[in-house]
Amino acid sequence: MKEVDFSTNTLTGKKYPLPMDNDILNIENFLLNNKDKKVVVVQGLGFVGAVMSLICSNALNEEYAVIGVDLANINNYWKIASINEGVFPVIASDPKINEFFEIAKTKKNLLATYDNYAYSVADIVIVDINLDVKKNADFSKKLLNFEVDLSPFKKGIEAIGNYCKEDVLILVETTVPPGTCEKVANPIIKDCLLKRGLSQSDFKLGHSYERVMPGPDYIDSIQNFYRVYSGIDEKSAKETEKFLRTIISTEKYPLTRLGNTNATEMAKVLENSYRAMNIAFIVEWSRFAELASVNLYEVVKAIRMRPTHSNIMFPGIGVGGYCLTKDPLLASWSKQNLFDSDSPLEQSETGVQINDKMPLYAFNYLKETFNDSLVNKKVLLLGVSYRSNVADTRYTPVEPLYDYLKAEGAKITLHDSYVDIWEETSEKVSSDLDKQLKKQIDLLIFSTNHSEYINNKNLINVLMKKNQLFILDTIGVLNEKEIKQLKQYHTVKVIGRGDI
Amino acid sequence: MKEVDFSTNTLTGKKYPLPMDNDILNIENFLLNNKDKKVVVVQGLGFVGAVMSLICSNALNEEYAVIGVDLANINNYWKIASINEGVFPVIASDPKINEFFEIAKTKKNLLATYDNYAYSVADIVIVDINLDVKKNADFSKKLLNFEVDLSPFKKGIEAIGNYCKEDVLILVETTVPPGTCEKVANPIIKDCLLKRGLSQSDFKLGHSYERVMPGPDYIDSIQNFYRVYSGIDEKSAKETEKFLRTIISTEKYPLTRLGNTNATEMAKVLENSYRAMNIAFIVEWSRFAELASVNLYEVVKAIRMRPTHSNIMFPGIGVGGYCLTKDPLLASWSKQNLFDSDSPLEQSETGVQINDKMPLYAFNYLKETFNDSLVNKKVLLLGVSYRSNVADTRYTPVEPLYDYLKAEGAKITLHDSYVDIWEETSEKVSSDLDKQLKKQIDLLIFSTNHSEYINNKNLINVLMKKNQLFILDTIGVLNEKEIKQLKQYHTVKVIGRGDI
Repeated sequence: MKEVDFSTNTLTGKKYPLPMDNDILNIENFLLNNKDKKVVVVQGLGFVGAVMSLICSNALNEEYAVIGVDLANINNYWKIASINEGVFPVIASDPKINEFFEIAKTKKNLLATYDNYAYSVADIVIVDINLDVKKNADFSKKLLNFEVDLSPFKKGIEAIGNYCKEDVLILVETTVPPGTCEKVANPIIKDCLLKRGLSQSDFKLGHSYERVMPGPDYIDSIQNFYRVYSGIDEKSAKETEKFLRTIISTEKYPLTRLGNTNATEMAKVLENSYRAMNIAFIVEWSRFAELASVNLYEVVKAIRMRPTHSNIMFPGIGVGGYCLTKDPLLASWSKQNLFDSDSPLEQSETGVQINDKMPLYAFNYLKETFNDSLVNKKVLLLGVSYRSNVADTRYTPVEPLYDYLKAEGAKITLHDSYVDIWEETSEKVSSDLDKQLKKQIDLLIFSTNHSEYINNKNLINVLMKKNQLFILDTIGVLNEKEIKQLKQYHTVKVIGRGDI
Repeated sequence: MKEVDFSTNTLTGKKYPLPMDNDILNIENFLLNNKDKKVVVVQGLGFVGAVMSLICSNALNEEYAVIGVDLANINNYWKIASINEGVFPVIASDPKINEFFEIAKTKKNLLATYDNYAYSVADIVIVDINLDVKKNADFSKKLLNFEVDLSPFKKGIEAIGNYCKEDVLILVETTVPPGTCEKVANPIIKDCLLKRGLSQSDFKLGHSYERVMPGPDYIDSIQNFYRVYSGIDEKSAKETEKFLRTIISTEKYPLTRLGNTNATEMAKVLENSYRAMNIAFIVEWSRFAELASVNLYEVVKAIRMRPTHSNIMFPGIGVGGYCLTKDPLLASWSKQNLFDSDSPLEQSETGVQINDKMPLYAFNYLKETFNDSLVNKKVLLLGVSYRSNVADTRYTPVEPLYDYLKAEGAKITLHDSYVDIWEETSEKVSSDLDKQLKKQIDLLIFSTNHSEYINNKNLINVLMKKNQLFILDTIGVLNEKEIKQLKQYHTVKVIGRGDI
């Protein structure tokens, strides 16, 4: 007898046995309760898809029946179960999330399922599944070694093509290598429809992307923000626009139509590459500032007064999150593999490489400072999230720093008020700052700029009373006064500051 | 008998014999007419120094006697003679230039000279001489081969040190490799003072930089803009601030003091590197957009709606001007040579390389388009200046494009309403657009985005009536409608647009 597999809710710890049957009955019952509504199916219930489901069930000027679809596997099934149990599967500080979810529960217009049957009842399918890059970090090489695996994305599109209505609108929101809608998704859908004996010219395929920002403005980052969109043909672009108008405040944030799906796909990876590259740029200058006794923070602040230079970045420990760490690579891959160029987007790829190296730089610096003996050193990491005031540890630069330190034999304690369990390392994270500060510490690292570390008088007072320790501020948490106070008792180093 | 050398006024063509005597009498007479005024000497009468002289003679809340100093050689003496004759040596569309110069003439508080004696009467010396980078363009190599020659700068500082008052304020405004004030200028001044038996601790040495922008806001770009400043010690910083307050609208544009001279020197090259690197970034993506049938202009426009992305650049033909083409190299040179780093600022250096390659890319594209036979092809270049609506051809990317085309045997005609003689190529430039358009043209290149080419109905009408020709728009001069019109008769290519 096959052992039953479970999917564990990473928020509550609850275990759900994976379902064995189809889910058609639930879907049909849901539709009976949502008669005469257009059906929106959201494929993928991650950081974007889960919230898109909420936004569609609370559409601005249309009543939709919304079905969220994800896979019935160990990693994903709990999200489906959680939504259907009334617990939203993403922790967010945005009160609108809860508000929107409560309304959806009252209206009973949101269902989650794993059954592809959902696609057969959809008027609109929104594709919000991930498309990942696998990096083989080897910093000895000039360019990163990485792979783009399109097969999970292709499977997702195939699932739609195998079930969808002939005249469905498929809206791809996934960040894809430019060219994917035209050269990958479109042929797959056509092929499926052909095999099913259906018309190949009635479906609509559009592309548009959100700029979702998990955190206090989670909903607004989708609903109240500028968007571009496109379609593989005129009718696709028109239908995409019509749909977006029902969920986005387009009066305040007008939509921008771009010439083709390559253009919108490129816009997404371009804007993220721009940001990644600007971070990489300042990483290099941080090293220079450290050599030249310069406070790069004050320099950048002065430069930012020019409107033409307002986007210049502050120093930091590199880049985290799902987008900036991979989107330049998706673009460079596309240029070479979908458009047959023999040269990569070198400046953008190099940017990712430089950013990825930052935690290693910080680690090497520490290793040198501690004369190669980090064994059993008591390290307190303040912050594991990649971004301030959110619980998002995806590709956080704190992870490699943690890995390096751990491999060196350091004894690491973690603090982050937003994260209970650090999924990627399976480590428990403390939210009790006072308790962690009371312990013996050899090395304290400010690794995320959470507000609670900034201008925290109690934190500074406690640190000033401790035995001599080494403090590394990787992201400019400490202000001038605090640095002066701490330097009386401890060694303080701030990345990007050579003047301390 | 030695032949007399002449210095030719590049604006008027007038030739001045180089002076043989000293100029002490003129200086003394000038001072007699400007009793009780503090004396400001501006070293260097180029694009910055000439205007700084005007700004000082029109200081906001102090009356200065201003002496501009340059070298009595073929290239520079004419500027001295021109100022003393009452003709300002820089053409500028800013009416304030003329206004300020007329006031200075009336007040008789501006003199130009070649005699280092000027430094002996100076209370304040402003260093505005150039510090150049010599590039050996070889695009086969990963990084540029370049040399930074500090010797002219050092000679300038020595001239000051050999004559200056013990308690002079020396304000370096030249863009220098970070570390130059501390490691180069300061020791030179001290050494000179020591040799002269004077105190080494009374002089003040400060650094501050302008963000001068030749064009309609020439004066304002210095007088009404944010500035950072610093000094090699506390008294130097204070005196620098005191002086800057007399010439800059500091109430509206508060001064920012940075920690040391390295910091302000770094700020200047950092802000220019940021811009150069962002241009290089979009250069790479232009190639991608061209491959992927994407209109990169509309994509960038859409991305710029995000405040965090407002500085993203539009496509173009690369970088020109005095600063962006060399400042990243000054920085990288400094890191390695003044701060003993074994690694360059790679991202920034690569940026310069990518930008420098752009004209070659455009040329190669044309060569391919014309099947390697550009011999005797009639080419009309619209614009030789590196920037719209100004007469500034320094390091214009149009120059290498012109050189490549010429070497290939093309017959080139130049149009630019702002430039009469293109100094770097010694070519005559026509300002009669209609006349040039009437000639036979095989290839028309929009090489500068001067306003007169934009939305110019007559230009389009004339072009539409011509025999078939090839039109290359390197900087987005043509709008959608114009492109459509021209495409009926001609082949049109726009850099960064794959959708045409």
